Amino acid sequence: MPAEPRFFERLRRAAASRQSLLCVGLDPDPIRLRGGASGALAHCSEVVQATQEHVCCYKPNAAFWEQYGADGLKALGELRRRIPEDIPVLYDAKRGDIGHTMRAYATAIFENLEMDAVTAQPYLGGDSLRELTQHRARGVYVICRTSNPGAADLQEQDSGGEPLYLRVARLAQSLNEFENVGLVVGATAPAEIARVRQTTPLPFLIPGIGAQEGELEASVRAAWNGDDASCLITSSRSVLYANDPGQAARRLKDQINAVLTAL
Amino acid sequence: MPAEPRFFERLRRAAASRQSLLCVGLDPDPIRLRGGASGALAHCSEVVQATQEHVCCYKPNAAFWEQYGADGLKALGELRRRIPEDIPVLYDAKRGDIGHTMRAYATAIFENLEMDAVTAQPYLGGDSLRELTQHRARGVYVICRTSNPGAADLQEQDSGGEPLYLRVARLAQSLNEFENVGLVVGATAPAEIARVRQTTPLPFLIPGIGAQEGELEASVRAAWNGDDASCLITSSRSVLYANDPGQAARRLKDQINAVLTAL
Repeated sequence: MPAEPRFFERLRRAAASRQSLLCVGLDPDPIRLRGGASGALAHCSEVVQATQEHVCCYKPNAAFWEQYGADGLKALGELRRRIPEDIPVLYDAKRGDIGHTMRAYATAIFENLEMDAVTAQPYLGGDSLRELTQHRARGVYVICRTSNPGAADLQEQDSGGEPLYLRVARLAQSLNEFENVGLVVGATAPAEIARVRQTTPLPFLIPGIGAQEGELEASVRAAWNGDDASCLITSSRSVLYANDPGQAARRLKDQINAVLTAL
Repeated sequence: MPAEPRFFERLRRAAASRQSLLCVGLDPDPIRLRGGASGALAHCSEVVQATQEHVCCYKPNAAFWEQYGADGLKALGELRRRIPEDIPVLYDAKRGDIGHTMRAYATAIFENLEMDAVTAQPYLGGDSLRELTQHRARGVYVICRTSNPGAADLQEQDSGGEPLYLRVARLAQSLNEFENVGLVVGATAPAEIARVRQTTPLPFLIPGIGAQEGELEASVRAAWNGDDASCLITSSRSVLYANDPGQAARRLKDQINAVLTAL
């Protein structure tokens, strides 16, 4: 059996073929979308159809599908099958538990839902994360520095002479033997993105563009290191609920590319 | 509309009425149990039937149900309805995300699955956790010190003169305005349980008894502070896969009570 292409290789290929570093979040909101789980599936399928030439990754967030209960998980499985084969799918689930339980999450996410990558919590440490990273063909983005005000409570606290999020970055780096580990660093904190980039060459996932009003240009400048996987910019609501999601995605893609061109 | 009784009040009543501090984890394993999600439901229902006079709480872990996909979530919903009304149910999901997304998890867990309490990740900070704790009738156990080797990677690191897990304990304490916050502290670390107890009177959830070979007696001594909710001891595999789950639960209940009697 030939080895499956690895997640970051697939991401790089999709980014190169579409000339895009844009990831679109697929996070259905029952207040905005009618028709329960099937309404969520219908809307997100349309968004995939409208945006696929402008994105290199899709990112459904688990919470938004779990809101609909079992029907939500079934709809997510169907949505996943509707995403073009050459675009990898990252499950934003932020899971973290002890080893035995992480193996069950790996089964749920990589086998059952057939996701190509997942986001994960660092707090339980390396042995917990290794249960995900041992799946060599899958990607694992470790939460490093988030874009919410509460990031100050723990992530920015001093941990032996450096902020905790830099310790997390180095922990993630130490788990990268299969070249399948990345970091989540929020776009509202471009200075922190730069500090993490000084610490590690790992690929970054950067949420907070759009509805969270992160700073796009500064984030791209701080994250990009010449690797097509180094700076995956993700937007959810500002594309998903745009009047014209295809146009919104193209505009974001172009904005990112304009920053790269000016480097 | 009369206020719903709060989670910790319900837990204290169940502990008092059954003279038990035991929580049983409901974590089906597809390798041990035949018949997919319906086999998991059947087995866990039998365990609930056999153990309900000896426990004050049940704790399904999300990962083990998610392994079965949408069928697993449906089975979990059915299992939840089969648990006696006076025994609260704690969803061990260890969720953590930014506010907007945490609201979706709260909907999924408290409304859709009708869980009475949930475990949560601290790494995203207070504003993230507040999206759960604002549900006053529900309980929120924040992960503080876990029982796996990787706990050393971040939790035990110095954070401004104290280990990070004590900072997490104080963060959780600061979120307790509705008296619905607890902490998860692993039974393999009784010395750390004692340090957390010196820091806060919050209720503890203590996993790692049984299959994880934690130290039962030392853990109870370190955690118990006279509050019936202070020391919730949880065991999963050693009850769930015992030849006689009812006997296994009674034995654990008796062991815990023997420690309390000797105090």
